[in-house]
Amino acid sequence: MKEVTVEELLAKAEQPSKDAMRLHPFYRGKIEVIPKCRIKSFHDFAIWYTPGVAKPCMEIHEDLEKAYEMTNKWNFVAVVSDGSRVLGLGDIGPEAALPVMEGKALLYKYLGGVDAFPICLGTKNPEEIIQAVKWLKPTFGGINLEDISHPKCFHILDTLREEMEIPVWHDDQQGTACVTVAGLLNAVKIVGKRMGDIRVTLIGAGAANIAIARLIVTAGVNPENIIAVDSKGTLHRDREDRDVLQEKFKEKWHICETTNKRGIKGGIKEAMEGADVVLSASKPGPGVIKKEWVERMEKDAIVFASANPIPEIWPWEAKEAGARIVATGRSDFPNQVNNSLGFPGIFRGALDTRATKITDEMCIAAAEELAKVAEDYGIHEEYIIPNMDQWELFPREAVAVGSKGIEQGVARVITSPEERFKTAEEIIKKARDEVQLLMRENFIVDPDAK
Amino acid sequence: MKEVTVEELLAKAEQPSKDAMRLHPFYRGKIEVIPKCRIKSFHDFAIWYTPGVAKPCMEIHEDLEKAYEMTNKWNFVAVVSDGSRVLGLGDIGPEAALPVMEGKALLYKYLGGVDAFPICLGTKNPEEIIQAVKWLKPTFGGINLEDISHPKCFHILDTLREEMEIPVWHDDQQGTACVTVAGLLNAVKIVGKRMGDIRVTLIGAGAANIAIARLIVTAGVNPENIIAVDSKGTLHRDREDRDVLQEKFKEKWHICETTNKRGIKGGIKEAMEGADVVLSASKPGPGVIKKEWVERMEKDAIVFASANPIPEIWPWEAKEAGARIVATGRSDFPNQVNNSLGFPGIFRGALDTRATKITDEMCIAAAEELAKVAEDYGIHEEYIIPNMDQWELFPREAVAVGSKGIEQGVARVITSPEERFKTAEEIIKKARDEVQLLMRENFIVDPDAK
Repeated sequence: MKEVTVEELLAKAEQPSKDAMRLHPFYRGKIEVIPKCRIKSFHDFAIWYTPGVAKPCMEIHEDLEKAYEMTNKWNFVAVVSDGSRVLGLGDIGPEAALPVMEGKALLYKYLGGVDAFPICLGTKNPEEIIQAVKWLKPTFGGINLEDISHPKCFHILDTLREEMEIPVWHDDQQGTACVTVAGLLNAVKIVGKRMGDIRVTLIGAGAANIAIARLIVTAGVNPENIIAVDSKGTLHRDREDRDVLQEKFKEKWHICETTNKRGIKGGIKEAMEGADVVLSASKPGPGVIKKEWVERMEKDAIVFASANPIPEIWPWEAKEAGARIVATGRSDFPNQVNNSLGFPGIFRGALDTRATKITDEMCIAAAEELAKVAEDYGIHEEYIIPNMDQWELFPREAVAVGSKGIEQGVARVITSPEERFKTAEEIIKKARDEVQLLMRENFIVDPDAK
Repeated sequence: MKEVTVEELLAKAEQPSKDAMRLHPFYRGKIEVIPKCRIKSFHDFAIWYTPGVAKPCMEIHEDLEKAYEMTNKWNFVAVVSDGSRVLGLGDIGPEAALPVMEGKALLYKYLGGVDAFPICLGTKNPEEIIQAVKWLKPTFGGINLEDISHPKCFHILDTLREEMEIPVWHDDQQGTACVTVAGLLNAVKIVGKRMGDIRVTLIGAGAANIAIARLIVTAGVNPENIIAVDSKGTLHRDREDRDVLQEKFKEKWHICETTNKRGIKGGIKEAMEGADVVLSASKPGPGVIKKEWVERMEKDAIVFASANPIPEIWPWEAKEAGARIVATGRSDFPNQVNNSLGFPGIFRGALDTRATKITDEMCIAAAEELAKVAEDYGIHEEYIIPNMDQWELFPREAVAVGSKGIEQGVARVITSPEERFKTAEEIIKKARDEVQLLMRENFIVDPDAK
């Protein structure tokens, strides 16, 4: 791996920023809403609108499930945010979150064939966010919560998952966890260890790592072998702030209670001692994780340093210190742990089986399939997870998620894996081909084209 | 005009119903959400999503107005309904309203180039509907309320119009009123009367006619010359149900107080005696308006019988009884008063000038321009209003609405009429061409194509 400096990396991140500031005002939006049914002439409006439309309306009135056949509800997902924790930018508000949510909608369509629509809400109150999403339910086949600050995001997700009969997903929790588990499964395979045996250190205890803690346990990690660290040190039962945690951060408190069997106290250094795996979702590095701490990990150590734009430790430093596998959030280093590998395929699978929820087991199924896609290409230290170009991963994930949902009884439409693969592949291919057609025919103009 | 029977007309309406029941499940939705910016490769995601997107987000965070440049907010309109009064179907609920709202979104795009998205809300409580729309505000450039029952629709519209700084429109009120006024202006011109002199009878006192009452007054009709009739008879100050009206139907009470100077009591018959114009938005006919009542109207009578699917009186009967001009809501009779002639152009104009609201005067400006478009083609008894094929009407309306908004100080972007016409025409043409391209290239398949 070629070493680069902080300056070089930041300079590299400058180019997308510059392009973004030039191209956002050029396009004035990343998505549009267009008819998807025939309009041969204005006579067809009598079918799509009054008087013809009345009949489909009455059909749905008599059986609400018919909305999935008569409308686009089957494929509509709301990307809901209050803008309270946008990327690394913090609480910038709902209007400022809109470019991200539009971008998410774009990814949903291009990678998963999902008709996602951004809904940036003018309230930050968790109960009001819950209320708003419930009111939106008749229109949508699923809900993607995004960039909502913690700890409220846990309560919002848990409540909505429980009380809604359409899938509700918080990508910063479940999406990140799913893709992390996918990478972890292959990394552990490569170093020849077993999920049930490994010691895992989580650096950072925000939405991502709290979700990761839960999902790796579902994936087979022994909770006693997990140690999490936040800005105040390791999580354990005797924390000085236990009262606050119990009252306001119950998900974190749950980690205090169920992990760190040995009761390790201290900071990142102590938490990493003897660990097989470090999963860091902390603050930008380098230097957040020190080389000498990696040196004191177990043999064949695995380090996921996911902070953006600069990982918590340089990959080459981690390697020099003995790490055998290093993953980051960046596309210009090997092993990019990227949420976009998850949500489009996962929702495709949930929507196509009309699942009432996306269970943790469905996330694991997606992670396992994602891991398998990489295995099919041949995994090694610098390739533990597929990249977006290997786009069969999305229909494959969809099938895996759907099959698990059917097995668990949360699917309302049951078809064969072969049928589901075919449907998912067609829908996604159509979305991609459509964009390419619009570019070719200059409906989407590229200002940089020669 | 060729006479037809109720049976023949109903049979005719059967065909769109049959097609709708066949084609709704075929397409499973009328609109989709697609990328509108270049995706040359996955590298472009670094512009549309993290890390590049952060910069546009921060720009908006510093100046909320930048959302109009950096995102699609400038062109997003929510079509909001609670499904409490859908077409003539009554309170069928939000899921069952979805085919209509999707259809509306389709019309918005194809006729006005507007990216409209259906939002069917899971609440019927007026205060909650108001709250939901306010929470949606950060995402949208405008709100179209649709098929919400009265009297609550008045309170909802008035509150939101007052308290939101984006245009809020209730098409069943303002849209219908605007297009009716357009037809009325030309009808009055043809018969050589003046708006200030005509006596107008309104049959029905629901959302449409209450809005029409207000708008025709703004257009020059003397309120004293208006008589409205509801199911209990004419509206006047001495109604037995005045207490109920004052408390719960204040818009209707306002009509009792301000119109019917002569205090005419009785039913439709009495209200029509000596009227120049009848505007009926009542229940399906024929026979709701009797021939002999038309006979007792003024010379050169004008009759708008807007009920669907069958007008309140057959056009030929009205003609035989002396009416000189008859309009209906049907496309298979002359003079179709069709909402689709209004909202797409009106919103185009409001959005392109970033208007904070759509005032009654802007509606009148749209109506006048719509009337002029017909005049340019040459108006006569059987052509008082353009039809959708004459689609320059939409950019022309947009210009008229925008100019009035600029004049009234509600526009936030001020450009010349020529520029606005060009922009509106381009946006609308692009939307239409895009659909035709997708049909040609089989992305939109026509199951009936040979």
